[in-house]
Amino acid sequence: MKRTLVRDLSGQMDQQVTVQGYVHAIRDQKVVQFLVVRDHTGMVQVVIDRSADNQRLNEQVSALTKESTISLTGRLVANPRVRMGGMEILCTDLSIESIADPALPIDIFGRTETNLSKRLDWRFLDLRHPRNQLLLDVQTTAEYAMRGFWIDNGFVEIHSPKIMGSPSESGAELFALNYFGQTAYLAQSPQFYKQMAIAAGLERVFEIGPVFRADPSQTTRHAAEFTSIDMEISWITSHEDVMEMEESWLQHVLSQVADKHGEAILEQFGVEIRVPSLPFPRIRMAAAQEALAAAGYRPPADSRPGDLDPGGERLLYDLVRREHDHEFVFVTDYPVSVRPFYHMRQPDDPAITRSFDLIWKGVELTTGAQREHRYEVLAEQAREKGLSPESIGFYLDFFRYGCPPHGGLGFGLGRMLMLLLDLPSLREATLLHRAQNRLMP
Amino acid sequence: MKRTLVRDLSGQMDQQVTVQGYVHAIRDQKVVQFLVVRDHTGMVQVVIDRSADNQRLNEQVSALTKESTISLTGRLVANPRVRMGGMEILCTDLSIESIADPALPIDIFGRTETNLSKRLDWRFLDLRHPRNQLLLDVQTTAEYAMRGFWIDNGFVEIHSPKIMGSPSESGAELFALNYFGQTAYLAQSPQFYKQMAIAAGLERVFEIGPVFRADPSQTTRHAAEFTSIDMEISWITSHEDVMEMEESWLQHVLSQVADKHGEAILEQFGVEIRVPSLPFPRIRMAAAQEALAAAGYRPPADSRPGDLDPGGERLLYDLVRREHDHEFVFVTDYPVSVRPFYHMRQPDDPAITRSFDLIWKGVELTTGAQREHRYEVLAEQAREKGLSPESIGFYLDFFRYGCPPHGGLGFGLGRMLMLLLDLPSLREATLLHRAQNRLMP
Repeated sequence: MKRTLVRDLSGQMDQQVTVQGYVHAIRDQKVVQFLVVRDHTGMVQVVIDRSADNQRLNEQVSALTKESTISLTGRLVANPRVRMGGMEILCTDLSIESIADPALPIDIFGRTETNLSKRLDWRFLDLRHPRNQLLLDVQTTAEYAMRGFWIDNGFVEIHSPKIMGSPSESGAELFALNYFGQTAYLAQSPQFYKQMAIAAGLERVFEIGPVFRADPSQTTRHAAEFTSIDMEISWITSHEDVMEMEESWLQHVLSQVADKHGEAILEQFGVEIRVPSLPFPRIRMAAAQEALAAAGYRPPADSRPGDLDPGGERLLYDLVRREHDHEFVFVTDYPVSVRPFYHMRQPDDPAITRSFDLIWKGVELTTGAQREHRYEVLAEQAREKGLSPESIGFYLDFFRYGCPPHGGLGFGLGRMLMLLLDLPSLREATLLHRAQNRLMP
Repeated sequence: MKRTLVRDLSGQMDQQVTVQGYVHAIRDQKVVQFLVVRDHTGMVQVVIDRSADNQRLNEQVSALTKESTISLTGRLVANPRVRMGGMEILCTDLSIESIADPALPIDIFGRTETNLSKRLDWRFLDLRHPRNQLLLDVQTTAEYAMRGFWIDNGFVEIHSPKIMGSPSESGAELFALNYFGQTAYLAQSPQFYKQMAIAAGLERVFEIGPVFRADPSQTTRHAAEFTSIDMEISWITSHEDVMEMEESWLQHVLSQVADKHGEAILEQFGVEIRVPSLPFPRIRMAAAQEALAAAGYRPPADSRPGDLDPGGERLLYDLVRREHDHEFVFVTDYPVSVRPFYHMRQPDDPAITRSFDLIWKGVELTTGAQREHRYEVLAEQAREKGLSPESIGFYLDFFRYGCPPHGGLGFGLGRMLMLLLDLPSLREATLLHRAQNRLMP
C-alpha cells in the first residue's frame, strides 16, 4: 500500500493508510497498546487492541523499542481527545524494519538536555529532534531560493578545486596534504577561483562548497571546515553594485524561508523571521566609529584600529535598529590596513577600500568588495602587503589578459543559519561540526 | 547607461546601446575601424569612422589589444552584410577597462588547436571559448534541474564533512592530512554520511560536493578531485525503487537541458540531446553476460569475473540500442564479489546484491543499490569483506538505533557532462582538472 506522510494524513480520514517511521513512544497496556510513530513530517498515534485475533500484532508491539523503525497499516479515525492532530490509526498490520538498541546514548527528546558535546558525538540521533529536522529543511529552502535568484539573474554555477598548489589567501591556518609526493593545500576560500571564472568571461558566478581553516579557536563562531557561499559579478562600477545585488538576494531568500517555514520556526525556535526592506541601511566605517564613540563606546585595547570588534558590531546594530528598525547594516569603506590586497581602493582616497561587511543582528555575516582587476595595480598592492609574487603568480596571471571590473562577497552557510534561528553556536547549525577537538563521526 | 547583453541587442534596433565585453577582433583600417566585441551571450560588430571628431576614439581603438575589456556606447543599426546578427554598433564612446598583454599564451579561438595540456595550463583563457562557456551554462542548468526535481520530491540538501577521522570506503587511494596533530582523510565519497542522514530520519537527501581520490591513473576518465552527485532515499522495497527515481530524475534533467540549450549544443558540440523515454531498459548482470557471450564477446583476461569491463559495457550498449533504441541501460543484480559490503543481498540468493549500474552511451555513469540497514547483518557482511570493526565502528553505529530501509546512487558531474556533450575526456568537462600531474592553477 502506498505510504502516506504524517503531514498528509488528515486528507484520508476513515480510510486505510500506511505510515512508516520511528517508534517515538510506546504504552504497552493491559487492554490496549499505544504507539506514537514519527516521520520527517510529524507524529501520529497508533492503537492496537489486545485481543485473541491480534495476538501476533500484540507480540510484535511488545517487542518494540523506542526509535525502532516500522511500517504499519490501519484505518485512520478521528479522535478529538488525541492531541496529535485529533486522529489515530487503528493498526491491523505491522512490519518491523529494524529494532533499536534500547540503551540510547542520548535522550533525544527528553526534557533534561544532554550536554552539547555528547549530542554532537551522537549527532545522527540528535538530528532526529524536530528542531534539527526543521534546521535542515530551512537550509534546503534557503539554498534553493539562493539558486533561484542566481539562475534568474544570469549566474553560472561553478565548482572550484579544493586542493590547491598554492595557498589561497594569507598562508596562515592552512591544512597541508601530501599530493602524490608534493605539498598541496586545502582551499580556505574559492576567492581566487571565482575571480578566475570572472576573468574567464563567465560574468556572474556562484559556488556553494566546503572551505577549510586550520584554526584552533574553540569559539562558538569557528569551524575547521564549513560550507561557504560565494558569488561574484562583473561589470560593476563600485562595491555599491555588489551590495545592491546582495540585499535583493537576501530579501528573496528570507522571504522564501518565511513563507515556507515561518510558523514552524516560531514554534520550534521562538524566532520571528523578518523579511528585510530595501535598501539596507549603510554607514561608512569612519562614520560608524564616530557614532560608536559618541555613544561612549571604547573598543578593547587589542582590537585592530580601523576595524570593528564584536562589541562594536553589537552596539552599532543597536544604534541602527533604533534609527532604521532594521536587522541589517552595511558598514562600508574599510581602511586598506584591515583588508586583503585584492580589494580595490577608492580613487579619491587610496587609504580606503571599496569594501563592506554586512552585519546582521549585531554579528558580521558577509564580507565583500570590488576587486582590483588591473594587473599592474593588483601586483603593486600585493607587494605592499608583503606577498611574494611567486606564491601568487598564478593568481596574478588571471588579470594579465583582460578582465572586467568585478566584485563579490562570501560567507558561511552555518553562520547564516545560526543568526537566522538565533542558535547559540555554529556547532548546532551544521550537519556535522569540525573543529580541533572534533573529527568524528 | 544600462548595459545590454549581446543576446538582447536585436530588440533595441536604432537606439543607443551600451555593450561591455572582450575585444574579440580588431581591424584598424585607414578610413574605418572595426571591432568585434564578445560577452558571455554572443558577439557584435562595432564600427568607428576615422575622422577629426573621432580622433580620441580612433586613438583608443588603435591602442587596443585582443582580449582587452571595454565598455562602449553607440547607435545600433541594421546591416544585412554583417554576419553576426545583421547589425552593428556605430560607436561614439569607449572606456578601456583593462588592456590584455598581446602575447596570449594560447590561441583561444584559432583554427590550429593548442594541445590540451597547454590549454589546461591556461584554462581561464580556454574557458573563454563559446564551447566552454556553453559547457558551464549546461552544468548550471543541469544542476538546477536536478535540485528542482529533488525539492519537488521532498529531498533535504546536506553538506557532509570532507575531512574524516576514518577512511570512508576501502582505505585505498586516500589523501591523508595532518589535522591539528592527528591523521585525517579526505572523503572519497559522502556514502557513509548520506546514510547517516537517512538514519537521522531525513528520509530523502541529496548532496553535490567534492570528493577526493589519490588515484595515480592518467586515463581520460579519472580525476584526483571531482564533483560528486549523491542521493539516497528511505522506505524503499528494493533497488527497483532507486532506479525508478533515478530514471525520472534524469529524464527531467535532460529535458530541461534540451529545452534550454539543445540548439546551442548541436551547434557547438554536434550532439543531439535525446530525452530518454521511461522506463529505461533493465538487464540482470547474469543475462547481460549471457548476451555478450552469445554475441561472441570475450572479456580481457584481467577483467573481474561477474563484472563488466569497458569493452563489455560498449557492446552491451550496442545490443540494447539495437533492441530498444535507448541510450541508457540499467545492469542489475551484481554478484557480492564485485560490490561493497554495504550493498543489500537478495534474500532468495545471497550471492547476488540488490544493486545496479547505469550505463549511458556505453559508459558506466552511476552505481546504486539498496543498502543493508540491519545492524547485525551489516556488521557480518563487513567482517566477511575483511573490514575491521574498529575502522568502521562509527559507521556501523548509525544502524544501531533504528534505521529505515533505504538505497541510493552516486556519480561524477564531470563524467555526466563528458557523456552528455561527447567530450573526449573528463579534463575538458570540468572547471579545473586535478590529477597526479595537474595541481595548478
